[in-house]
Order: sequence, then structure tokens, then C-alpha cells
Amino acid sequence: MSTAETLRALLDGPYTQTRDRVRWWLSQPGNEPVDDLPLEEHRARVLEWSRELASQGDTAIGYPAEYGGKDNPGAVVAAFETLALGDLSLLVKCGVQFGLFGGAILHLGTEKHHARYLQDVGSMELPGCYAMTETGHGSNVQHLRTTATYDPDTQEFVVNTPDDDARKDYIGNAARDGRLAVVFAQLITGGESRGVHALLVPIRHEDGEVCDGVRIEDCGPKLGLNGVDNGRIWFDNVRIPRENLLDKLAQVHEDGTYFSPIESSTRRFFTMLGTLVQGRVSVGGASISASKVALTIAIRRGLERRQFGVPGAEQEALLMDYRTHQRRLLIPLAKTYALSFTQLRLIKDLHAVFTDENTPERERRELETLAAGVKALATWNATDTIQTCREACGGAGYLRSSRFAALKADTDVFTTFEGDNTVLLQLTAKNLLTDYKDSFGDLNPIAMVQFVAGQALSVLSERTALRKVADSVLPGRDDDADLLAHKTQLDLFRWRHEHLLTAAARRLKGGMDAGKDPFSVLVDTQDHVLAVGRSWVDLVILESFVAAAEQNPLLSKLCSLYALSTIEDERGYYQEHGRLSGARSKAVIKAVNTLCGELRPHSRELVDAFGVPETALGDARVVANEQERVPA
Amino acid sequence: MSTAETLRALLDGPYTQTRDRVRWWLSQPGNEPVDDLPLEEHRARVLEWSRELASQGDTAIGYPAEYGGKDNPGAVVAAFETLALGDLSLLVKCGVQFGLFGGAILHLGTEKHHARYLQDVGSMELPGCYAMTETGHGSNVQHLRTTATYDPDTQEFVVNTPDDDARKDYIGNAARDGRLAVVFAQLITGGESRGVHALLVPIRHEDGEVCDGVRIEDCGPKLGLNGVDNGRIWFDNVRIPRENLLDKLAQVHEDGTYFSPIESSTRRFFTMLGTLVQGRVSVGGASISASKVALTIAIRRGLERRQFGVPGAEQEALLMDYRTHQRRLLIPLAKTYALSFTQLRLIKDLHAVFTDENTPERERRELETLAAGVKALATWNATDTIQTCREACGGAGYLRSSRFAALKADTDVFTTFEGDNTVLLQLTAKNLLTDYKDSFGDLNPIAMVQFVAGQALSVLSERTALRKVADSVLPGRDDDADLLAHKTQLDLFRWRHEHLLTAAARRLKGGMDAGKDPFSVLVDTQDHVLAVGRSWVDLVILESFVAAAEQNPLLSKLCSLYALSTIEDERGYYQEHGRLSGARSKAVIKAVNTLCGELRPHSRELVDAFGVPETALGDARVVANEQERVPA
Repeated sequence: MSTAETLRALLDGPYTQTRDRVRWWLSQPGNEPVDDLPLEEHRARVLEWSRELASQGDTAIGYPAEYGGKDNPGAVVAAFETLALGDLSLLVKCGVQFGLFGGAILHLGTEKHHARYLQDVGSMELPGCYAMTETGHGSNVQHLRTTATYDPDTQEFVVNTPDDDARKDYIGNAARDGRLAVVFAQLITGGESRGVHALLVPIRHEDGEVCDGVRIEDCGPKLGLNGVDNGRIWFDNVRIPRENLLDKLAQVHEDGTYFSPIESSTRRFFTMLGTLVQGRVSVGGASISASKVALTIAIRRGLERRQFGVPGAEQEALLMDYRTHQRRLLIPLAKTYALSFTQLRLIKDLHAVFTDENTPERERRELETLAAGVKALATWNATDTIQTCREACGGAGYLRSSRFAALKADTDVFTTFEGDNTVLLQLTAKNLLTDYKDSFGDLNPIAMVQFVAGQALSVLSERTALRKVADSVLPGRDDDADLLAHKTQLDLFRWRHEHLLTAAARRLKGGMDAGKDPFSVLVDTQDHVLAVGRSWVDLVILESFVAAAEQNPLLSKLCSLYALSTIEDERGYYQEHGRLSGARSKAVIKAVNTLCGELRPHSRELVDAFGVPETALGDARVVANEQERVPA
Repeated sequence: MSTAETLRALLDGPYTQTRDRVRWWLSQPGNEPVDDLPLEEHRARVLEWSRELASQGDTAIGYPAEYGGKDNPGAVVAAFETLALGDLSLLVKCGVQFGLFGGAILHLGTEKHHARYLQDVGSMELPGCYAMTETGHGSNVQHLRTTATYDPDTQEFVVNTPDDDARKDYIGNAARDGRLAVVFAQLITGGESRGVHALLVPIRHEDGEVCDGVRIEDCGPKLGLNGVDNGRIWFDNVRIPRENLLDKLAQVHEDGTYFSPIESSTRRFFTMLGTLVQGRVSVGGASISASKVALTIAIRRGLERRQFGVPGAEQEALLMDYRTHQRRLLIPLAKTYALSFTQLRLIKDLHAVFTDENTPERERRELETLAAGVKALATWNATDTIQTCREACGGAGYLRSSRFAALKADTDVFTTFEGDNTVLLQLTAKNLLTDYKDSFGDLNPIAMVQFVAGQALSVLSERTALRKVADSVLPGRDDDADLLAHKTQLDLFRWRHEHLLTAAARRLKGGMDAGKDPFSVLVDTQDHVLAVGRSWVDLVILESFVAAAEQNPLLSKLCSLYALSTIEDERGYYQEHGRLSGARSKAVIKAVNTLCGELRPHSRELVDAFGVPETALGDARVVANEQERVPA
């Protein structure tokens, strides 16, 4: 096997066949990503594509076999993230239909819903919506304001939008194709509010006519993803039968009696959200794929394009031979590899959780926490990486045919959907600070402040995560350790996280003990709290990369580049806490530069390993051919 | 005057009237930025707009009065950057026509060219192109490959594109409207190459038909700026009369004798580029304006949008009350103010240089150096700021009607055009490292390595910039100085720049002295060299802000936020060199947080001061009205 093939096998993980099938589909004529179609034509193309994929059975593999699926949730994510190498509107259309809409029916509904709908969802016969977000409530969805009031006289739920602020907004599949919607609403029975529940509400008839009492508005052109028909939905006291409540986590009896095995409504809400973790894992994976496309285009160009160089030399110098170009592209390359291996871990954990009902609660919470954090870091990495790659391609990267226009525009909202990144990092930090004990508390960060403050510090530091901190706070204790040793790198990452975590807990508690109000305590420490989340995700990412790197010397070098460039970014913190001396900190920068130089000869193999279909590279090949014609 | 009015007067500088006139125009119905028009309609709209502006005499104010102008180059830049609050395709169309194309005729041509063309250029009667960039040479334009060979028999120049790599590429106004092009080509007379010169080449007849021997191709849809018709141009031995050479810097006599008052062809090339500094100043200014639009939208939304907050409180908390939101928006706000005051300085210097022929050479070089550096930092700031603002607006920011789609896409290429940012920062550093002595050397960074290495270190450190370094390298010497004192901040910025500069000179020289080849020496130090450029621009930006801040306590606070957040970013470096202790470094972070909290109540005034016309804010007002309807 060539180096690229060896690396690709490692990156693909256990789903090579699934991924190859998607790569094959993307390579077929007619399946190239759209770079310039009018809105409605783009929407039509995407619908047609998704029907084609559905007809081949590729979109239902996560569903039970009895409904046309293969009971394989891990393969779904692998297929989805590979599909992200191509047109991202198609990806999001599929994500909405088969992941969010179908996933809600699968995970929140019961047998009767599965039997009635899943087959048609998986085959795209029944296009649907996942109607959670409202104009006024995007992050704080627990407080959304659509209502579903049970009427025992008719045994129906009455779904209602109280005002424009509570309309469902940015809902994929709503503007044009969706016929049924999973609507999240405050459930009211017997005059009592039971918190957010999901219900199936028809929004269009088979002929496309909008149902009575439903109003739909097109969100119109967006910054990107214009092949997806996002819309707004209002419900004017729409009546739906009792069985349309997705009732796995809570049931309403004919007389309106409410029953749920989960007593706390907040806990129920988070259990509901937890079943939908696949969305976050998938968006994270998709953004990693988009980064791979951008890096492939930019690095290939950097290996063809010449500019300046030694005066009088036969040829100008290749862009990739400049250190600035190496730093700009190889560091994001290393991070994208690192995220890719972390994603494999997430897929493995997700598959385990969804195929084993006995997975311990804590493992589920850990999966949710890691999925939230990786989604935030992977989507930010995509935004940064794609931007850098566009710039590295100069004017050529600005032509729409280069693919950067679509890559930039389509991935832009990944930092927002499935949870705003800042909110997600805060959630990650919260779960760590409360050691998952408050996982069912309010998403509200204030609740976290109050929980942490309520704990004794001794209890806080008893936790696994905090246990070894005392050992590692001694300054500069490994000044002689080899920076290229993964153990050294892991120690530094771990130390940073543990130190941030302990200090944040102390500050939260200290603020409350000093009698401040919890909002002020949160505000005072919020940047620190986010750093807790980020540092933990960084650590898990490095652990994942190191595990993979042990199999391959080239990967080991790339892993060191990821580790040391991250330490370089954080060297202010390390020095503030005496963990790196000034000289040591400078040595980190030097090592990053040296690694860039050493990896430069392998840069083509490293992107070839991503296996991005040529059809997804825009006119990168054309540019390549032109460059080859540059006379010496 | 209200606070916002006071601040606006400071930000507008001496060109209030000019700016108000542009703001008025932008506020008229029909002049709102385009957010969704098909390519050709957008192009037509932009052409129509530019004709309207031209008919009002607003586009020629930098030209001599005898050709319809007002001899006011400073006002041109002020008008241009204000126009950047609106549709950026219009801005770039104007920049190409009146700035680049007209500017080349004005600055590189002589009386006969002015008399024949300027009036028609300024009125948009004669749309034209600035044909410099080639497919194969974007940054290294000194080595572009189009030729203009003088034929004494017919007294014509023969303009030729030797191969596709030498075609003119990404040329604005070329695909649709341009009739005349300023073509940059290697001039050949008497069989000898004289370096790059500019010549006027007709490319289309009045009826729009392409001239014989000229081939034009549409670049097609771009990532943004689709109201500008970029194209590619090939010349197949096109003959133009001798007087079409723009001959201010060099003349060719009837018999082909070549004469230039500037002997060195490289020096001539850079003198030529120098006259075009207005382009860089204008792009920098435009990107500052685009940042202002984005910040106005996002901060207004942050002051209306509520999410989470104290449980049980009457209302959820405003986004702007969260520290993370403050850090995300107020730090870019401070930087945008800082750049805005620096831009006023650039306009002043530019006006002086262009209205006083006796400006000393060194001042011209300093203007060029600062313009290059500010262009780089301002355009990167725009890319980052607009992205952050989009994310801060969540899903609402993703609708095209929010304006973020256009802001992101249209400004994206600002980091590339008028010089790739990395190349520009390197140029800045080079001018500093060679103390402008090698300003006429090759743009090639290798030449800089050789120049610096050729100097004695004692000579290098004799220079003004290096003189005081010895005094300030003592570590931690101002640990007690007030971080909020601008003097402390300036000292830290200056120290960082001077230390980087001296160390880079030593490394360049040391590398060459050790017998390494100059390319390796460059590669080894390239990240350090870029830091030299960046640190100097940072310093000048702070100096400009401090000068303005002295007039206003609120600005002084904002200036401290700019200064300390920059020091926070660079605290790794300061600690490495013993200039900040760990405790002091932590104090910087704390001060940034405190300043964010203190500036929060003024955030609306601070963006209102930008004076962005409401028509340029997309649906920000609609969103605002909706938010006001959120029940308590």
C-alpha cells in the first residue's frame, strides 16, 4: 500500500466500505457539487439527489431492519460525513430528513410511529421537518413557547403558536417539500404544563397544499445551503390525534392523565435531547470533511504554484516551500487529522450507546459532552481552515468554480446549528465542572454556578478529573522532557485542563461565597469557564490522535505538530502558571517550525489520504494543468 | 452633541461633508445594497449606480480641476471608504474605474493622456481596466510576462500574450464594460527589455464589440462582488500608437530610443507602484467600513436579543450582558476604532504626498510601508470581525437579508487584492529591516535577506528604530506601571516591535554568516520576519488611537481595550522575553474583562457613532422590532 492508502485506511476506520460507496456516488457524472444554480433549481436538484440516495437504501441504514434499515447508527454517521465531501445542501437535506426528522420518530416515538412512518421517511416518500427552533428561542429551547394542549373531549392535541416570536424558524424542508413535522411544544394536560415534548403535525397534504391552520413562509435566500428549503411555520390551534405525541418518554392517556417514567421535566427534556446527539456528531464530522476538501485544494495548489524565489534560479519557488505557507496549511492539516481520529472515537461511542440499551448513564453523558465540544471545535476549525485555504489560493480561490465559495458559505452556519458553539462549550464545561452530576439541570449557565457553589471544594477535587492536579502544578518540572514525546505533550494538555478546571471551580465557589449574585459570578468567570471546556476537548483530541499515531511514524510527526502548535497558542497560559519557562516556550515555536519543514515533503500524500473525489475539487485540476505549462 | 455625535466627528476627521454626502446617497431609496440579484442584473445595477455617482461629479474629486475634478486625493479616499458602507460591488467597480484605471492615467501618464481621457474616465463615459495581474503572476508582478515591443517602422507598440499563463486575469471591468485598458507589460525597445511599463490598449469599440487581436473571457461567478465584471484578456500582437505608453516615468522616442529619469529598472518599477498606493489605502479603509456595518448589526442585536439568564427573573438576560458576548464583539469594536484612526492618519499622509511634489522620498516610502501593513491588518480584521458578528447573530445572521452573506463574500478577497496580505506584511518588514534603504530592491524576500546580511550589525542598530532597544530590554522593569496608562501600553508595543526587529536582523545576518543559502535563511526566519511587520503596524495603530483618545475619556477606555487585548494575544512573547511576569500577564487578562464590562453600557453609542445608514443594515431593524415584541 502507498503511504496515502495506509493513512486512508486509518482515517476511514471500520467503515471503509460505506465510505467508498459514498465516494463512488459522488464521483458519478451529475453528482458534482453545485456551484451556481438559481435557488429553486438548486432545491429541485437536491431533492432529486436525496430521492436517488434513498432509493438505493443508503439513507436508512441507521433504522431497524424491519423498516428498510440496517440497524447501524455508526455507519450512518460515517456515510453522512463522507457525503459532506460533496454538495453540502444535499448533506443538510439528508441530515434534516433522515437524521433529525427520522431520528426523532425513531428515538422519541414508539412502535406505532415506527411502523407507520419510518419506511416512508427512509425512502423520502414522506419528507418532513424537525421543528424545534423558534424565532425567540434558539439556544434556550427548553423555554420555547409553542403549545400543545390536550383536549380530552376530542382526544386531540391543539398545537398553537402564541405570537410571531414563537413561530418555528429556519426549519429545513419547511418552505417547499415537508409534509409532516416533528413539532417541539410545551405540552399542557389538565391545565398543567409538562415541559417540552415532540408531536407529529401534518403541515402539507400529499398534493403540496398547506394544511388548514398552518401558515408557512419561505426563509428565502440564505448565506449558503440554498439547496435546502428553510421556512417558518405558524400553527393556529391545529388539532392532531392523541397518538401523534411521540410517546417514548411520556404518555398522555385518553382522559388526559400524564405519565412519564422520568419524573423531573428538566431531566426528561435532556433525555430527549440526548437521543438526538447524532446530529451534533454528524455536523462535527461534516465540518471535518469540508476542511479536508479545502486543504486538498490549497495544498495541491501550493505544490504547483510558484512565486518569487532565488534570483536567477531556473524556476521560481513553490509556495509550499515557504515557511509561512507551511504554517498556514500544515497546522490546520494536523488539526484536521486530529479531529478526524477524534471523530472515529465519537462514532464508536455513539454506535455503542445506540446499540446497547444498557450503556451506563455516565457514558451517555460523556458522549453528549464530547459531541458538544468536538462539534464546536471542529466547526470553528472548518471556518478558519477554509478561509485560510481560500486566501492561500489567491484570486483563483475567489472564483466560484474553485469551490471555496460554496465551502465557505455552506459550512458557515455549522457553528450555529445543532447548538451555538459558545453555548456548547459552556455546556461541555458545565458537565465537567459538575462531574455530570448536574447533567439534568437547566441548560442555563446560572444553574451551573449555583450547583458548583453548593459543593464543598473537597468534594469537587475528589473527582477523577481533579485528582492528579496536585501532582502536576509544580512549575517547569519537565523542562528536560522531549517535546516530541507524546507523553510530554499529553502531560501538558492534561495539566492545562486540570488546572483550568480546578481554578474555575474555586472562582465560581469563591464568588458565591463572597455573596455575589450568580449572574455576576458567571459573567466574571465566563471566559475561564469556556477555557475549561475547550481544554478538555483539546485533551481528548490529542489522546485520540496519539492512539492512532502510535501505528505510524508520519502520523506521529503530524500529531506532534498538532500538539505543539496548540501548546504554542496556549504558551501565554503555560508561562503564567510556571509550567513552561521562557526558553522552553521558545523551543516549542522552534519545534513547530522544524516539524513544518519535515512534513512538507509528505504534504501531497497527507491530503491524498483524505480520498476527496476529484469531482469535489472544483477546478483545482484545471489550475494544476495550467501551472504545469508554466515555462521553466 | 450626543456622545455618538462627538465620536462621529472624531471618526470622520476633516471630511465630514464628503462622508455625509455619501451617507445621504446610500440612504436614498433604490441605493440599498443588493442582497440577491442574478449576476447580469447585479452588474447592470452597479454600472447604472456608478454612472449616477459620476454624473454628480463625486467620482472625479481626486482629479485635477481642469478635468472635472477637485484636486483632492484625501477626500477621494474618505468618500470611497464611506461608500463601502453600502454595496461593495459598486465600491469595487468605482475603485477599478476611477481609482486604478483613472489613477494610472493620472499618475503614470502625462498631459496628453490627461487631456484626452481623464474627463471621460471620471464621468464613466469611458469604462476601463487596470490589467496588471496575470494568471501566473499575482504577487510577483515585476515578473509578469505580457510584452510590449516597440516597432520603430510604424511607431507602434506590439502588445502580446505569449501563453495562457501570461493572460491578464481577474481584471475588473473586463468581462462586460471596459473599452480601454491600462496594460502592464515588459517593454522591449531595440531588442532590450526595459522592465514593466503601463500602456493604453483599446479592448472594445464604442458599440461593445471586442477589438481585433484581443480575446476576452468572463471569469464567471465569483465568491462575491458579482456586480463587478471580472474577466481574462489575451493580446495577439495588438498594435497601439507610440503615444499610448503612459510616459511619465519613461519615454520611448520615435526611433525607439528609451529614456527614463530613473536609471534602475527595479527602482522605476517601485516608483510606478508607489504612485498607486491609493488603492491599498482605499481597500484598507473599505474593510474598516465593512467591519463597522457588521459590528453595528451584531451589537444592536446583542442589545435586543435575550437568552437564558437568572431563573425566575422577569426577562431573560440580554446577550450583551454576557462576558463572552462582550469579548467577542467589543474587542473587534475597539480594534475597528483603532484602525479607523490609523486610517485618518494614512489619508492625511496620502493627501500630503499627492499634493506636495516635494515630499521627501523617505516619507513616501513610509506611507507605502504603512499602507501595505494597515491594508493587511485591516482586511484580516474585517474577515474575522464579520465572521464573529455573523455567529453572534445566530440563524438570523445566516439569512441573506441580514447582509452578512454579502459582507462576508464581498470582503473576502480584500485580503488578496491590492497585494496578498502575507506578501504585504513581508514587504512592510523588509522596509523596516532595511530602513527603507533597499526600498527599490526586488519585492523578492530573498533580496531582503541578502541586503540585511550585507550590513554590519552596528549599522543596523544605529537606525532610529533600533536606537532605543538597549534601554528597554530589561525584563519586567515596569511591573508597577499602570496598565491603563497609554504610556505603559505604548512602551510595551514599542518594546515588542523593537525587540522583534533587532532579533530578526541578527537571525538573518547570523544565518548568512553561517554559510546557509539565502532561501533557507528566509524560510527559517519567515514567521519572525512577518511578526516584525505586524508588530510595527500594531504600534502605529496604537499611536494613532492614543492621539485621538486623549480628547475623550470613553475613547481612552476603548483604546485601552485595544491595547490590552493585543498584549493579551501576545502575552506568550512578552513572558518569553521576561517583559511581563506571570502575575502581570494575568492582570492584563483581568483588565480586558473589566474594560469589557465598563464599556458594555456604551456599546450602542459606540456603534451609532459609525453612522452606518439604516438602509445598509439589512433586516437588523426588522429583527429589532420583533425582539421588542418578546413578552416579559
